[in-house]
Amino acid sequence: MEISMGHTLIEKIVMKNTGKADVKPGAIVTVNVDRVMIHDIFIPFVVDKFHEMGFKKVWDADKVVLIYDHLVPTSAVEDVRHFKIGDAFVKEQGLKNFHRADGICHQLMPEMGYAKPGNIVFGTDSHTTTYGSVGCFSSGIGYTEMAAVLGTGEMWIKVPETIKVVINGELPEGVYAKDIILRLLGDLRSDGATYKALEFSGSTVDNMTVASRMTIANMAIEAGAKAALFAPDEKTAEFSGVNYDDVAWLKADADAEYCRVMEYDASTLVPVLACPSQVDNIHPVSELKGTKIDQVFIGSCTNGRLEDIKVAADILRGKKIADYMRLIVTPASRSIYEEASKAGYLKDLALAGAIITQPGCGLCCGRACGIMADGEKILATNNRNFLGRMGSSKVGIYLGSPASAARAALAGEIC
Amino acid sequence: MEISMGHTLIEKIVMKNTGKADVKPGAIVTVNVDRVMIHDIFIPFVVDKFHEMGFKKVWDADKVVLIYDHLVPTSAVEDVRHFKIGDAFVKEQGLKNFHRADGICHQLMPEMGYAKPGNIVFGTDSHTTTYGSVGCFSSGIGYTEMAAVLGTGEMWIKVPETIKVVINGELPEGVYAKDIILRLLGDLRSDGATYKALEFSGSTVDNMTVASRMTIANMAIEAGAKAALFAPDEKTAEFSGVNYDDVAWLKADADAEYCRVMEYDASTLVPVLACPSQVDNIHPVSELKGTKIDQVFIGSCTNGRLEDIKVAADILRGKKIADYMRLIVTPASRSIYEEASKAGYLKDLALAGAIITQPGCGLCCGRACGIMADGEKILATNNRNFLGRMGSSKVGIYLGSPASAARAALAGEIC
Repeated sequence: MEISMGHTLIEKIVMKNTGKADVKPGAIVTVNVDRVMIHDIFIPFVVDKFHEMGFKKVWDADKVVLIYDHLVPTSAVEDVRHFKIGDAFVKEQGLKNFHRADGICHQLMPEMGYAKPGNIVFGTDSHTTTYGSVGCFSSGIGYTEMAAVLGTGEMWIKVPETIKVVINGELPEGVYAKDIILRLLGDLRSDGATYKALEFSGSTVDNMTVASRMTIANMAIEAGAKAALFAPDEKTAEFSGVNYDDVAWLKADADAEYCRVMEYDASTLVPVLACPSQVDNIHPVSELKGTKIDQVFIGSCTNGRLEDIKVAADILRGKKIADYMRLIVTPASRSIYEEASKAGYLKDLALAGAIITQPGCGLCCGRACGIMADGEKILATNNRNFLGRMGSSKVGIYLGSPASAARAALAGEIC
Repeated sequence: MEISMGHTLIEKIVMKNTGKADVKPGAIVTVNVDRVMIHDIFIPFVVDKFHEMGFKKVWDADKVVLIYDHLVPTSAVEDVRHFKIGDAFVKEQGLKNFHRADGICHQLMPEMGYAKPGNIVFGTDSHTTTYGSVGCFSSGIGYTEMAAVLGTGEMWIKVPETIKVVINGELPEGVYAKDIILRLLGDLRSDGATYKALEFSGSTVDNMTVASRMTIANMAIEAGAKAALFAPDEKTAEFSGVNYDDVAWLKADADAEYCRVMEYDASTLVPVLACPSQVDNIHPVSELKGTKIDQVFIGSCTNGRLEDIKVAADILRGKKIADYMRLIVTPASRSIYEEASKAGYLKDLALAGAIITQPGCGLCCGRACGIMADGEKILATNNRNFLGRMGSSKVGIYLGSPASAARAALAGEIC
């Protein structure tokens, strides 16, 4: 088949998926879904809708992934119902891909190879954009849509326009992927990429680990983006267990058309924080120095990977966190937990005073593992600082990199 | 001073503490408190009462230990208030002995050397009897009593009668300290030792680790015991960091008088479980075979020590827990967590499917980390199976050893 030129990465994925020789932004197309992810919070709603719609069997049991993460381990009696319904659905449908306590969905999907380069994947969670880190078109959908996908294997989408984000140069010491995405969110604002795809490129991105790309793709939704894509390279191929040659087509054409191009010189970036209580309320750390912090959280699907835990361990090794500080560390998955344990990072962090929790969504989604009270402030590495997300509605949440977080844990204040 | 003969271990501790040449069971005496422990749940109540009583300063800041464990990490907004009041009290009183996330109080008190052989220690928790494992007279008191002790350093007690429990011989393979104390609870019943001291001796006890003695002393309160004492030996001295010669006096006289003597032949003991919903509803595991179990909990101040985690790891290494089983492992303290991590046990357990939580009281006290729902059954290694303790009031809680628990996790049923 002749494929027309002039396409962005997401357009090429849609064309490949649908067999169309050309697609333009704004076109409504029906795609064949390569994989879906449903997490524990939404399982009861999806299963109910699925049956209500009259479906008997999911379109392809191998393409369905169930992940228990928000409620693991349960902190309320009601939580167990979600597992029971999920377990029954697994049995009823003969599902093979389910994880009852292996980590956070957005970590597991790329880590376990469920979301691969070139795939189209939908999940019942807004941060499903994460899998764009491996060149996958992935996005969050609601439970009614998910029930329909389970029955049909198809999903309609409007082909998104693409914003090209080019980042070149070397990041200064102490500046990380998290600082890049926060800066971008500050520039785009929280609605600046609504229903658009972000496409990242440039030498900074080329030199980035897959883990760091996950951090960026994870937060793309905070600007409203439908997807956030990185063209796969050799690192991606290794991470995803595919041959690079098979995924080398996954890049934008040189003459692709973008609705906007944003360029950054990495060497000019500084550590920043999203201040209470909007993700786009971005300020340099230097402006916020001395702000007293009661609790620090390092973890989540945004920044709970080995490199994040290493950065924190390197800062905290042999030291003690501030008096009265509470430091909570939550690795993103069971395998990361094990790697961090093996590397000695968890020991370093524990000796410095950290509470190491089981992998899961606990604190980030406000269920358990560090709920906070009126008037308290937290510096956290996760992806949202909305009012009431991590405890009472009078908690101030600052979002930053694991390095900014670890330093605040030591000092008891932003520094 | 001439010390009269014919005394039990607890009487000798009271005599030494008070300087009396003789005490008899039933006598009311005022003791000089060597150490007190207050945990996070009770801190607000103790501090309120302390001020209400008009006290300004605690009698001896070095003798006060504050431990945050039941609410670590916080799972509700209200939890934080307990920390704030505790933190303020630490500052106000210049306390040095406080632990904000180091583990469960009853593990830390002996582990950190706060409760030493021959001491008299009170704590705001019923399982304070645990420190009898190192030959300490320790018992739980209410928050009003604790406030008074904080102000005065004194406490009145009625000298308890003593039940002598003699256990001789070798435990069969698969039978542990937990099986001994459960069997004893079944024989004594839940009120059989009310306000009495238990004094353990015999070759089985001599051969036991300090950790196993802690398991037994921990649960003595379940028969109503005021205290549960083990005469210190060389192992105790090493564990508590004291010279054996200095604590060698801590043993009953040969002609001590007991209100009851119970003798056990260890070789005849079998693995047992406390069945729902009373701690003295004891049945052999063999009678309960095939009972379906939804969740297994290995941890707590009863059985969350290195030897407990090792037993579980040895059983689960290289295997997978049953489908749909939830296995939660909670080391009793930060140091145990680190040792278990270093020894590879946590990795073995995690690979088998366990959720490893931070040290703390979470699930045992029904706050978080595995709350259960109507109709579910759990086999747990902690100390109470009362209705509603670990979730809804329709959860069936079976109490057993880490070995019984690990086997049930593998099989999905009691076996």
